[in-house]
Amino acid sequence: MNRERRSLAELAEFVGGRIVGDPETIITGVSAIENARRGDITFAVEEKYLQNAAATEASCIIVPPHITESELPLLQVENPRFAFARIASLYAPQRRFEPGIHTTAVIHETAILGREIAVGANVVIGENARIGDCSVLFPGVIVGRDVSIGDHTHIHSNVSLEDGVTIGSHCVIHAGTVIGSDGFGFVEDKGKHYKIPQIGTVVVEDNVEIGANCTIDRAASGQTVIGSGTKIDNLVHIAHNVVIGSDCLIVAQVGISGSVRVGDHVVFAGQAGVAGHLTIGPGTVVAAKSGVTKSLPGHMHVSGFPAKPHNEEKKIVVSLPRLPELVRKVGQLTTAVQRLARRIDKLEGGPM
Amino acid sequence: MNRERRSLAELAEFVGGRIVGDPETIITGVSAIENARRGDITFAVEEKYLQNAAATEASCIIVPPHITESELPLLQVENPRFAFARIASLYAPQRRFEPGIHTTAVIHETAILGREIAVGANVVIGENARIGDCSVLFPGVIVGRDVSIGDHTHIHSNVSLEDGVTIGSHCVIHAGTVIGSDGFGFVEDKGKHYKIPQIGTVVVEDNVEIGANCTIDRAASGQTVIGSGTKIDNLVHIAHNVVIGSDCLIVAQVGISGSVRVGDHVVFAGQAGVAGHLTIGPGTVVAAKSGVTKSLPGHMHVSGFPAKPHNEEKKIVVSLPRLPELVRKVGQLTTAVQRLARRIDKLEGGPM
Amino acid sequence: MNRERRSLAELAEFVGGRIVGDPETIITGVSAIENARRGDITFAVEEKYLQNAAATEASCIIVPPHITESELPLLQVENPRFAFARIASLYAPQRRFEPGIHTTAVIHETAILGREIAVGANVVIGENARIGDCSVLFPGVIVGRDVSIGDHTHIHSNVSLEDGVTIGSHCVIHAGTVIGSDGFGFVEDKGKHYKIPQIGTVVVEDNVEIGANCTIDRAASGQTVIGSGTKIDNLVHIAHNVVIGSDCLIVAQVGISGSVRVGDHVVFAGQAGVAGHLTIGPGTVVAAKSGVTKSLPGHMHVSGFPAKPHNEEKKIVVSLPRLPELVRKVGQLTTAVQRLARRIDKLEGGPM
Repeated sequence: MNRERRSLAELAEFVGGRIVGDPETIITGVSAIENARRGDITFAVEEKYLQNAAATEASCIIVPPHITESELPLLQVENPRFAFARIASLYAPQRRFEPGIHTTAVIHETAILGREIAVGANVVIGENARIGDCSVLFPGVIVGRDVSIGDHTHIHSNVSLEDGVTIGSHCVIHAGTVIGSDGFGFVEDKGKHYKIPQIGTVVVEDNVEIGANCTIDRAASGQTVIGSGTKIDNLVHIAHNVVIGSDCLIVAQVGISGSVRVGDHVVFAGQAGVAGHLTIGPGTVVAAKSGVTKSLPGHMHVSGFPAKPHNEEKKIVVSLPRLPELVRKVGQLTTAVQRLARRIDKLEGGPM
Repeated sequence: MNRERRSLAELAEFVGGRIVGDPETIITGVSAIENARRGDITFAVEEKYLQNAAATEASCIIVPPHITESELPLLQVENPRFAFARIASLYAPQRRFEPGIHTTAVIHETAILGREIAVGANVVIGENARIGDCSVLFPGVIVGRDVSIGDHTHIHSNVSLEDGVTIGSHCVIHAGTVIGSDGFGFVEDKGKHYKIPQIGTVVVEDNVEIGANCTIDRAASGQTVIGSGTKIDNLVHIAHNVVIGSDCLIVAQVGISGSVRVGDHVVFAGQAGVAGHLTIGPGTVVAAKSGVTKSLPGHMHVSGFPAKPHNEEKKIVVSLPRLPELVRKVGQLTTAVQRLARRIDKLEGGPM
Repeated sequence: MNRERRSLAELAEFVGGRIVGDPETIITGVSAIENARRGDITFAVEEKYLQNAAATEASCIIVPPHITESELPLLQVENPRFAFARIASLYAPQRRFEPGIHTTAVIHETAILGREIAVGANVVIGENARIGDCSVLFPGVIVGRDVSIGDHTHIHSNVSLEDGVTIGSHCVIHAGTVIGSDGFGFVEDKGKHYKIPQIGTVVVEDNVEIGANCTIDRAASGQTVIGSGTKIDNLVHIAHNVVIGSDCLIVAQVGISGSVRVGDHVVFAGQAGVAGHLTIGPGTVVAAKSGVTKSLPGHMHVSGFPAKPHNEEKKIVVSLPRLPELVRKVGQLTTAVQRLARRIDKLEGGPM
């Protein structure tokens, strides 16, 4: 971290906040509340976390407007977490990428390169590829034919962009990820599997971030799409012809089957899966390890496998530990009822 | 897509089909039934899908022999899906790989290279490796020592083939996949884990396709085997000493533990797992997210964790939402039975 | 395998064992008990496995001290599995890596290289990186700026070590793995996700082995840590700020969410997951496919999702197949109780 000196007044202006305390307080870094040192700014979204703050050496706490009192200087903003992230970016070490093309990069003569791009060692750029301005290709990146990359996009080491895929501007693609591999499309005839040609492509829109070692398959025909602003974690699998909306969050090891359509602002927690050809409406939240087997209208929180409304699943999960006891009890009840029946038989003067 | 013009007669001959309608109909492309444009050929496996066809602009529909009437020309074949895939391959853009070895490829002097191979930029081929005729190595592929690759095999970018592995002919291995990494074999002594040398290898037979970013470990000793014609999706893990039969389908993110033996024509759906040392008989279908914990004789459809016959699992899954109500009901029944018992006591002149 | 000739006496001395039988027996290799050939040494940890041994052609069996009789020569040791692994390493083909730097490697002038390192073709080593003595970088490895690698560490093909990460001595990192990718840290403001700068790093301590195509994210701030002696299988995801203790085993496709703290000697079986910010105490065993949702004190065996003590989960799993029948029975009981109630009503002279 650059431990640069900035006044609290300067930071308040940067994030549009209101200071409670000394505006000349010097801030030299950012930190989570439990690790903060003297000079650090930290944040708290609820009053209860301020007790931790009292114990830290932090020099200022970013808080929501309703928190007004503390022994430490406060910076009041509407969204403390967001203000914290923005201030953190001020102190983050800015790695500048010197524009330039490493002498070992292999660039096809027909490729079109933007201004101020940085191309690392052993990068390969294919025929008719196009790289936008200020983009950065780390060492070992392979860019296939007819690939298009926008401006200010960073592609980390050993990423493979297969022929024809399109990556937007202001994207980040982490190391080892593969975009544009063939979809898993085969047809069976007499017990053998024959490949269905995968002649579509992948479009990754602007402001998308994709984690490390993900796989995003090209469409059988048409496009696999990752909508703008969507963020994808590591080891995620997106099958052919999937269309993901904007501003989704897809956590690590999620798998989305072929031709699924996902609306905007959908969240998939870790290791969840979705069966093929479903539609997941906007605003859906899919809990970790869930398996979605039916289309969802949107704005639901689902969990379990098969995925159900989270409240229903929770009731099942809470009841499950009682199941072994239930089996026993039902056995006992059956015996008890038989015994009562015999006693009633007797009272009725029935079979004795 | 090459929008080349072919007559329906020509296509019927190619797939061995029978035309209902005008054999001179011109076909310029292929498409799914819902997206078909004028000039496209599409397919329908059941009568009910023909209603969609009526609404499309398709110029011909591939159908099974029992479908005989439609407003559009028909092409009757035994397996419409397969005929469609074959015709699609006619129209798929054929990427021709110019034979040749890129100047930046690093090839050991002892390596044996077949005829008409295409070796991309920054490929590394190790000592005593052998590449068959007409095979294609994309940029950044690493071929270890003593690796053998058959004819007409395509290895995509940044694949790592570790020392000694064997890849058959007519295989496709997608980007980022690792074949021949060490198996996960350790032995504990006094709380420390010591490595068991992994001195076996991997054999991938002919006509195998392996997706992107998969991992296939070498055997501890002997061979890990992927049988001929088997197709593997992305991010699949195959542990050491696994033997997979022929013509299997293994969908994305499946994990198969060490020493498992899988018969021919087995299907694993996405995110399924198999515990170590089991035998999965031929024709088994393992549903998505299942966990197989016992050997299976074959020709079963299993699901759930632990995996059970699919019909049994389905009954459990259907019953589960009733579990919370069941807990309540059993409580009520217990009370009701106690109350009845007291009433009977009274009738019997028992304890009052 | 080197089929070198060693006497049983020599091997006994190497592992500190006691011979029952002829010390001059010649051993030329190692093998699992079911595949052993003449000249092989194998092992058996329990008497019952000796029956298999009787059927093999093995020339000697490594056994625990309480096994004293067999038709074959025995080698008695405290930990037969460990002795077997050590003897196997004697017979494993020792690949020697000729020290040297391939002419195509791209090494920054400020990098500091240890003695007798082997650097393969197309390796890239960044500014201020430091490689310890006798370490081996396979072809295509990318070492970022300020990366530090200890002594005797092997990094396989196409691994990406991002800027600033530290790898200890005697480590093995398998092909395609990414260490130091950004953590998945975003903050939402008005429906958009903004990146929280990930300015921490990753520390991999000594004697760690990491499988192929894993992803280990850098901390948001501070360090993600993999403790010494821990062994990680393929396709494992370790999120930012996770701290893993020493001598853990993490099997394939496990995912560990952000800021989780894992004690020493913890085992995660395949496809398990852990939710964020939990503490997993030392000696915990997490079964395959489990999902841990609460912190665990240590020395427990948990399974299921949400993970529970294994014994509790087992009871539920055993009861589940009875659930459909239970639903039916409770329905029948309800009817039976109503009928009894009516009969008692009658006996009591109640409503008729």
